[in-house]
Amino acid sequence: MGLLRKYDEIDLRRIPAGTIKIDCLGAYIANDHLIRGNVSLLSTPSPSPPTSDESLSDEEESPTKDAKNANITLPKHNSEVIHISVDIGGTLTKLVYFTASLATGKRAGGKLHFRDFQTGSFEDEALQFMIQLVRESMLKKHCLPITYIISTGGGAHKFSKLMTSTFAKNKLPMQIVKKDEMECLIKGLDWLITKIPNEIFTYDLEKDNIRFNTSPVTEKDIYPYLLVNIGSGVSMIKVTGPGPSGFERIGGSSLGGGTLWGLLLLLTDAQDYNEMLEMAQRGDNENIDLLVGDIYGTSYNKIGLKSNHIASSFAKVFKKLRFNQLGKKLTTAEKLANFRQEDIARSLLYLVSNNIGQIAYLQARRFGLKRIYFGGSYISGHMQTIHTLSYALNFWSNGEMQSYFLRHEGYLGSVGAFMMGPNGVKPSNGTA
Amino acid sequence: MGLLRKYDEIDLRRIPAGTIKIDCLGAYIANDHLIRGNVSLLSTPSPSPPTSDESLSDEEESPTKDAKNANITLPKHNSEVIHISVDIGGTLTKLVYFTASLATGKRAGGKLHFRDFQTGSFEDEALQFMIQLVRESMLKKHCLPITYIISTGGGAHKFSKLMTSTFAKNKLPMQIVKKDEMECLIKGLDWLITKIPNEIFTYDLEKDNIRFNTSPVTEKDIYPYLLVNIGSGVSMIKVTGPGPSGFERIGGSSLGGGTLWGLLLLLTDAQDYNEMLEMAQRGDNENIDLLVGDIYGTSYNKIGLKSNHIASSFAKVFKKLRFNQLGKKLTTAEKLANFRQEDIARSLLYLVSNNIGQIAYLQARRFGLKRIYFGGSYISGHMQTIHTLSYALNFWSNGEMQSYFLRHEGYLGSVGAFMMGPNGVKPSNGTA
Repeated sequence: MGLLRKYDEIDLRRIPAGTIKIDCLGAYIANDHLIRGNVSLLSTPSPSPPTSDESLSDEEESPTKDAKNANITLPKHNSEVIHISVDIGGTLTKLVYFTASLATGKRAGGKLHFRDFQTGSFEDEALQFMIQLVRESMLKKHCLPITYIISTGGGAHKFSKLMTSTFAKNKLPMQIVKKDEMECLIKGLDWLITKIPNEIFTYDLEKDNIRFNTSPVTEKDIYPYLLVNIGSGVSMIKVTGPGPSGFERIGGSSLGGGTLWGLLLLLTDAQDYNEMLEMAQRGDNENIDLLVGDIYGTSYNKIGLKSNHIASSFAKVFKKLRFNQLGKKLTTAEKLANFRQEDIARSLLYLVSNNIGQIAYLQARRFGLKRIYFGGSYISGHMQTIHTLSYALNFWSNGEMQSYFLRHEGYLGSVGAFMMGPNGVKPSNGTA
Repeated sequence: MGLLRKYDEIDLRRIPAGTIKIDCLGAYIANDHLIRGNVSLLSTPSPSPPTSDESLSDEEESPTKDAKNANITLPKHNSEVIHISVDIGGTLTKLVYFTASLATGKRAGGKLHFRDFQTGSFEDEALQFMIQLVRESMLKKHCLPITYIISTGGGAHKFSKLMTSTFAKNKLPMQIVKKDEMECLIKGLDWLITKIPNEIFTYDLEKDNIRFNTSPVTEKDIYPYLLVNIGSGVSMIKVTGPGPSGFERIGGSSLGGGTLWGLLLLLTDAQDYNEMLEMAQRGDNENIDLLVGDIYGTSYNKIGLKSNHIASSFAKVFKKLRFNQLGKKLTTAEKLANFRQEDIARSLLYLVSNNIGQIAYLQARRFGLKRIYFGGSYISGHMQTIHTLSYALNFWSNGEMQSYFLRHEGYLGSVGAFMMGPNGVKPSNGTA
């Protein structure tokens, strides 16, 4: 604590909480090549933006570097940022924070950083990281310290007391501001769509590659759309315009990332979500799923079902176990030995993704929506997931709906909360 | 073969294939108490119909008794029946056949029988059973022998050659007539709705019990409706009127009975589908699924999500494994030891049933359909499944749609094929 400025040195009243606005002129994604899977297929990789030789960013001061998620450079934002944002989901907690850059000793814009943590270890990981960020901000001479946590997501309420008491215990004068989850998602998505070049991309099913939207879309051209946010579970939000009156949660599904991960934890040796996605990449679902051709011996042309269409997910498990070990009572390990883990992973990835694609189509159809944005950490930039969601939506809509994806797909809520900031909140004079 | 009438004694030309019509006047379900699960909750059990003391049915001649599926008595049907029907699905093969009854030596109606077999053992089980039925029919003095197989379902094409060659090898002069799967489903459903009292029932969500439709509905009152047929996979068929022009397959899902059974075979010790359903009956999904309350600490009233609503199926698996065995590399058995099999079964039953309920709602909404019939062997008369499907449809439609279920839910296709019969088929003079 010796290095920290003392409590009474921090005068919250001088911090202009009501006027903070993020200047995103000239914003761009700082590093690239982030889409996992068939990275070689990227058709139009965004060019590396020029970086000033003079720039002496102090982002290295942050506790760990964000390897997984590309920073967003805000070259023109030079006003004070006194908040960080946190979106506490069912499985993952997503953090967004800003660091200012210096050029020849002067402020020269800054960067947005993106970090995720397990919600299950919230107290030990995400909260400790926030405390570190706040402490470091107090050491910086050229910036005001962080004094606001803008919190959203399902856990914002649940972890509110824990955050308050922990900051107080650490003698950090933080104020925690809760924001509505859905509003943050939409706010974040709108910001990413309209402000960040190369943030949004689509999957070209004919050429089997992805295409970036090199120019952001202006606000008047983005509505209406459907946001399908896939975290542990799935939320579907119809958006017809900006602001709180412009959106409505119209549905969802309990089959999301938590389902895929939960089942694959039990059925495979994958140690983390990415390992599981990589397994799926190498798998073949035809060894697990019953295809139309397996039942009909051919396609069922009368109703337009191709022979390679999945008729029943996982239905070959029964057939294989029945024939290989008729009558024997097998252990789970013996049963699983009949199948490749990669095939199981692929089958489940298809199951969840196809299902979400179909429900998204049906929900979008109800309201005549043609643009579907898929967000949430479920996707994790994984090409096979992106392809499957695109394929399913295209299949069901007969090509009439377009899927869109995002580079920062997991951070919609935390970006939205960050952009809302502490504006309008009355400073609490240091009581957390 | 000694007991069989000889080939040349059977003159197919004298069999009136073009005029067979099933007389269903006074038809009723022969035995009752078939709904598994909370059988004590049945509100209006259909009365046992009177049986004539004189009746000397010869149904005991059939190879095994159909314990699982209630016969349908056809007291007035006395004309010849020379066919059986078979619906060959991805997992199950469903057979319907007729036996005549005798009273004081005279024909006194008869009974429809329902049997299912594993499609995976088609040649050894279903086909052998059919051969036995045909041979027995040749021994009966008062009836014509069976000479037609009306076949439908995905496997009707795939197993066509095998059936033809096997009957020929057994010197049985059978003719196999293929019928369209969807048409049979609808035909069978329409027949059961309009002809059989106590066949259709609904689930009363307030009183938590089921109600039988004691009187069949007349044909003009049943359309339009949506049939959701849940076998290995799911087919959804919009029906606006009788006949082939009155229906259209509008969608489906690969998450069906094959998915539930495949996953539970791997994750539990259940040896058959019924054992798995009974497991689910005793389970508690709150140990497996992440509920809204687990994430929010409370309900999310703003969007109408109650705290006991499932936010993410299976998402507690990750949380539990993470905290119980942090960092250790576990075998599948060690991982599964953290969970009760019953809880896993219940969670998966909810997952599949809720998902089907939601997609059914969305599909029905597209076409303004208010009546949804759930058929297929997935349900197997299991109360929890029936409750979950009813609940999901009621939840999503705000009570505006009504779910209907059937006693012979797995036999729609084979009943339809049976009712269509060999009508209009030109006899082939004994060449199979």
